[in-house]
Amino acid sequence: MADARAGQPVLGPALSVQPGAAIGILGGGQLGRMLAMAAASLGLKTHIFCPDADCPAFDVAAARTVAAYEDKAALKRFAAAVSVATYEFENVPEATASALAALVSLRPDVRALATSQDRLVEKMFVAGIGIATAPFRAVDSEADLAAALAELGTPAILKTRRFGYDGKGQVRITPGDRAGEAFAHLGGAPAILEGLVPFSREISIVAARGPDGAFAAYEPCLNEHRDGILAVTRLPAGLPAATEVQAVDAARRIADALDYVGVITVEMFVLEGRNGQDGILVNEIAPRVHNSGHWTIEGAETSQFAQHVRAVCGWPLGSTSRLRPVEMRNLIGSEIDGWPALLAESGAYPHHYGKARARPGRKMGHVTYIRP
Amino acid sequence: MADARAGQPVLGPALSVQPGAAIGILGGGQLGRMLAMAAASLGLKTHIFCPDADCPAFDVAAARTVAAYEDKAALKRFAAAVSVATYEFENVPEATASALAALVSLRPDVRALATSQDRLVEKMFVAGIGIATAPFRAVDSEADLAAALAELGTPAILKTRRFGYDGKGQVRITPGDRAGEAFAHLGGAPAILEGLVPFSREISIVAARGPDGAFAAYEPCLNEHRDGILAVTRLPAGLPAATEVQAVDAARRIADALDYVGVITVEMFVLEGRNGQDGILVNEIAPRVHNSGHWTIEGAETSQFAQHVRAVCGWPLGSTSRLRPVEMRNLIGSEIDGWPALLAESGAYPHHYGKARARPGRKMGHVTYIRP
Repeated sequence: MADARAGQPVLGPALSVQPGAAIGILGGGQLGRMLAMAAASLGLKTHIFCPDADCPAFDVAAARTVAAYEDKAALKRFAAAVSVATYEFENVPEATASALAALVSLRPDVRALATSQDRLVEKMFVAGIGIATAPFRAVDSEADLAAALAELGTPAILKTRRFGYDGKGQVRITPGDRAGEAFAHLGGAPAILEGLVPFSREISIVAARGPDGAFAAYEPCLNEHRDGILAVTRLPAGLPAATEVQAVDAARRIADALDYVGVITVEMFVLEGRNGQDGILVNEIAPRVHNSGHWTIEGAETSQFAQHVRAVCGWPLGSTSRLRPVEMRNLIGSEIDGWPALLAESGAYPHHYGKARARPGRKMGHVTYIRP
Repeated sequence: MADARAGQPVLGPALSVQPGAAIGILGGGQLGRMLAMAAASLGLKTHIFCPDADCPAFDVAAARTVAAYEDKAALKRFAAAVSVATYEFENVPEATASALAALVSLRPDVRALATSQDRLVEKMFVAGIGIATAPFRAVDSEADLAAALAELGTPAILKTRRFGYDGKGQVRITPGDRAGEAFAHLGGAPAILEGLVPFSREISIVAARGPDGAFAAYEPCLNEHRDGILAVTRLPAGLPAATEVQAVDAARRIADALDYVGVITVEMFVLEGRNGQDGILVNEIAPRVHNSGHWTIEGAETSQFAQHVRAVCGWPLGSTSRLRPVEMRNLIGSEIDGWPALLAESGAYPHHYGKARARPGRKMGHVTYIRP
């Protein structure tokens, strides 16, 4: 594609989205807030669409739309005001995404969204391209659940197919539990039963893919959850080199198969193998920047937020090199009360999302430690 | 002040400005833009006051006031909406600053502003606390200028006392030049004649002082100007250790003497001494974050913008440690046309201020290189 003239550097084609243009973001949480700041650093304006007039991202947005995701007229005005649209959470209604995509370039696209917002579709997609997952069965009724439990055994986890996050919408079934109660616990919603796998570690691959197919992954992030919510991410993850390659390769194949544009996060389990040959199982795809990638703000040459902006604008992807050992700790609920002490802590990079109320389980901020 | 109880960490007093509060900033240029992003990272909202509805900082501000600096009613509403006020440029009219300071805590205060916005007052203040400057004389008339030239000799530089920046409002007088023409060139405004000193290097000290007198300086920045505008800043500056100490000490004495709160920048000349004993002369004080401190965004543990926010909020100052060798290059005027190439450059951290028009001499962005 490039036209190499004698002695001239090859700049590639002119940028399709120019500095000064506006990026539209559906969703106004802390991910939208950090995306907006990254976009501003790169000379772009951000237009945030969020039903909540008090959302964290509005504080740093050049333009705001407060409207329901179902408000077609508001979506139309929003689409007309931006050069490219993206989203910061995967539960964007599919009708919203489709309506928007008909008006403006939506990146990642409707298919990426549809694939990741339904656990069954997601697992079938991943398995369908030959990547291992935990064993799973679709569960639409109590009878389905009984049959699935007979096949997969216990312990197992029953999850709603849609709208689960931070451990919500799932229930663990152990030997002796009554299947009917578990199904009722999730309100009888369409669900998926997943066999429990004896994993040793949870990791994620945060990666980006450009519209030209360029791909760049960060190193695997080693994640520690508490009460179903990410608590700590550490790098390096200390995985065998072959496992790292396998994990990055799985993320790349998923992104390629979806013809994905933007930052994608793939959560995986690491299974310890017999001969030092670990294996990975894909657990979940998030079609967006991710909590486990927050360390990249100070810890990598390009933050995941800047990388997503670059990708959705069709700009060159930045370097994903990590600078030093790094640890990211979430500040959840009342943990934010430690803010004054954190400000005084050496080697700590504290981030506060500006949320007014510290409800239990609510992500209020995070702190990144760069180790020498 | 701290109350050390057995076994308990000492947190110090509760924060007087809480996360979620609003910081008011007079001025909406790129410094205000970067301050607003730093404030947001720390959980604070920013309210920008700027007469220009198109200013870069509005893109990332939670609230905006478009009004003249002389608009007392607008200032009153602005003061009522913020917990603390600051400014991003030193040419804030003194009446504006005084009116605001009567309504809300203004940091740095009116005295810091008044001292730095008049070159004569500034030089007399610096000399008055025993810190060396270039020789200078007040020039209010052609006759003053002739007398000053007779005393200081040529070459010398005639500068307006007020409203100079980026090399504007100054003229160099070389042997044979007519004094009358030089004075007329500056429009007959009150001026100051400065003797030209044979300096070897230009440096700046970017430092912060808190309301409790805490002080933290970054290492000296080695600055290279072109056409009177900062072009490149490099660190380490490669100064003898004694010169570094002398430079930081001068900045500290200036900040202490002004009972200063916030980030202060002191520009200095380094004179090569006879016995490897370099000396420093203070050239100029900027009561604000500074172009020569942009490297701190990626290059230091705390950026100058976060540091200013911490200081004006009375929060603990952050570490000023530099991580690696660093170089910051301004993107001035049409240099911003290199943006697509910069995005693809390895090791480059590109910043674009989102300004629509690239006029000659206008600061459009900067790029920081972190060296291995």
